[in-house]
Amino acid sequence: MIPTTTGDHHNRQHLPLHLRGPSPPPANKLTDCSKATKDSFRAKIEKREWNRSSNNGSTTGNDDVTLCSSSFDKISFHKDRNKRRVRRNLEADGIDNNEDVDGDSSEGGDDAKSSDSARGLTLDSVRESLIRQEDTIVFCLIERAKYPTNSPVYDGSVAGMSGSLVEYIVKETEALQAKVGRYESPEENPFFPENLPPSMVPPHDDPEVLHPSGTSININKTIWDMYFNQLLPLFVQKGNDGNYVPTAACDLHCLQALSRRIHYGKFVAEVKFIDAPEDYSPAIQAQDRATLMGLLTFEKVEEMVKRRVEKKAMVFGQEVCLNDEDDKKGKYKVDPSVVSRLYEEWVMPLTKLVQVEYLLRRLS
Amino acid sequence: MIPTTTGDHHNRQHLPLHLRGPSPPPANKLTDCSKATKDSFRAKIEKREWNRSSNNGSTTGNDDVTLCSSSFDKISFHKDRNKRRVRRNLEADGIDNNEDVDGDSSEGGDDAKSSDSARGLTLDSVRESLIRQEDTIVFCLIERAKYPTNSPVYDGSVAGMSGSLVEYIVKETEALQAKVGRYESPEENPFFPENLPPSMVPPHDDPEVLHPSGTSININKTIWDMYFNQLLPLFVQKGNDGNYVPTAACDLHCLQALSRRIHYGKFVAEVKFIDAPEDYSPAIQAQDRATLMGLLTFEKVEEMVKRRVEKKAMVFGQEVCLNDEDDKKGKYKVDPSVVSRLYEEWVMPLTKLVQVEYLLRRLS
Repeated sequence: MIPTTTGDHHNRQHLPLHLRGPSPPPANKLTDCSKATKDSFRAKIEKREWNRSSNNGSTTGNDDVTLCSSSFDKISFHKDRNKRRVRRNLEADGIDNNEDVDGDSSEGGDDAKSSDSARGLTLDSVRESLIRQEDTIVFCLIERAKYPTNSPVYDGSVAGMSGSLVEYIVKETEALQAKVGRYESPEENPFFPENLPPSMVPPHDDPEVLHPSGTSININKTIWDMYFNQLLPLFVQKGNDGNYVPTAACDLHCLQALSRRIHYGKFVAEVKFIDAPEDYSPAIQAQDRATLMGLLTFEKVEEMVKRRVEKKAMVFGQEVCLNDEDDKKGKYKVDPSVVSRLYEEWVMPLTKLVQVEYLLRRLS
Repeated sequence: MIPTTTGDHHNRQHLPLHLRGPSPPPANKLTDCSKATKDSFRAKIEKREWNRSSNNGSTTGNDDVTLCSSSFDKISFHKDRNKRRVRRNLEADGIDNNEDVDGDSSEGGDDAKSSDSARGLTLDSVRESLIRQEDTIVFCLIERAKYPTNSPVYDGSVAGMSGSLVEYIVKETEALQAKVGRYESPEENPFFPENLPPSMVPPHDDPEVLHPSGTSININKTIWDMYFNQLLPLFVQKGNDGNYVPTAACDLHCLQALSRRIHYGKFVAEVKFIDAPEDYSPAIQAQDRATLMGLLTFEKVEEMVKRRVEKKAMVFGQEVCLNDEDDKKGKYKVDPSVVSRLYEEWVMPLTKLVQVEYLLRRLS
């Protein structure tokens, strides 16, 4: 599957309040080039036009992205990194301080936090969001596992329909939610961007946090393909119980949760870049994907994330009975090893892919 | 709030396969009057017309239902009930055998199961569904609790919109899901039935399990009022983080989960009635709500359900860390006592209300 960059609808940067730091956003090089004015609606429309034309000149072609997308093998851990960057990566990959195996979670924290929060984004807020999103993903998988495969949802065989039921549900739900502004948020990325109606709701005039040319990154085609062709067969029972619409609705929730988590790599990359631009700038200037991927890869951290999501699948997917001795130990609604594999093979590599793509555009 | 009966769109009885027992449905008094023919689409349209006209003559007025809805006080436990009925009620209220405090879970089981499964509905399937739906409800509440109140979602103050955002999301999502057959299922009840477009998908020709005049019971107005005015303020933090569409989407999921659970009372009532029609028929013939409510109330059972959902809120709402000692004991994403209260004050009383309303129509 070829990850693609989409149109201009992602360039409307509404920073959700929960991502904002305590300080007001100062004028700096990012907000200088993209901050919304008080007449934000008209100004943003004009800016979208500007972004669209500037994105057309992007140096990053789809072929390059495909190459990166298909080479998810780990790049070895660089021993010469300084502790400060290790801490940053640990946190940004969703590891809380108590689980910092290097024991240096507080080092440099204040400096980093102040520079990030000045831009409305903090390591803390990014880390907390990533950890919380793990719960959401596990809940969504457990809910989808209530239903068996229900293949008519996917193969176009539902009587009265000309196409796939799940595509209909996803496309139409995205369209109705777009009308009320879902995709005004930089955290949200649609699976069918080409069909979105305009929003009735004007964009907020909040400070923009992402670099404009990076916000258009959208690898939902890859996520769609991964979810239906690789992940789904791993955790649902074969069968058909006739609950087609609830099944498709659960698929939508899984897709949205995975998409949000993976595209959150844009925020991870931004907070890392702002924290130490000197670490990334040479590789960005050289458009060196492999080096960037290496800078973003920490095997020990990834191993911890895998173990944590596996534990979450055990805790959230257990059969809870009133008497502890009646709990069905070892019986889970979704196999915890599948959730671990989901993170190892897809969520973390794709998040890093988003980070690399974002950083490649960060100085444009 | 006044629970109302809605139009004819619930009379299309598609029994999901997961509710079906192992035996093929025989001809009996229920299927005789409502079983779909092989030419099911046309036959069901005709039947809807028949049901609509017969429902118009229903003896149950809204005033009566309101009286019942506003008097949720427990009716005392009837000591003269036989053990067999206690077991039925225990199971149907979602208590698994291991938690049967009366220790008589196996008594009479085979007889009851055979008569139920012959109709495609078993005590086991009803009980399992109710228990599994508890998990879904807890997950939905936890997901909604990610966001603060976000009052613009409800008060019509979102710029560019003329009405309530959450009403728009619920209404439009129901409309698009109705087109592909969501409300063909007897388990699904819309909040805005008056706005539903016709389904593109023909109804299945599965055996019908619910009595036709009972399927039109819809107390979603009561559930809507309870959820927004009473429940929501109990478990979300005050505040505004700007995530309006995801917040409204979470509300939709909570509403759908609660509605499905509460209206599942129709299946509970049907399986109880089929198991022992002689227990209920006198009160039904006398249209005696209070006696029916008494027959359906088991305080010990309700106490166990409350304790179990409270435990689920603790298990599913905990902060999971890799090291057990780092787990934040006693800190939950949704206060477990709120989930217990939700079941005590609303879910169980409203489910019983649905059961009473269903039984009142059961012999019509």
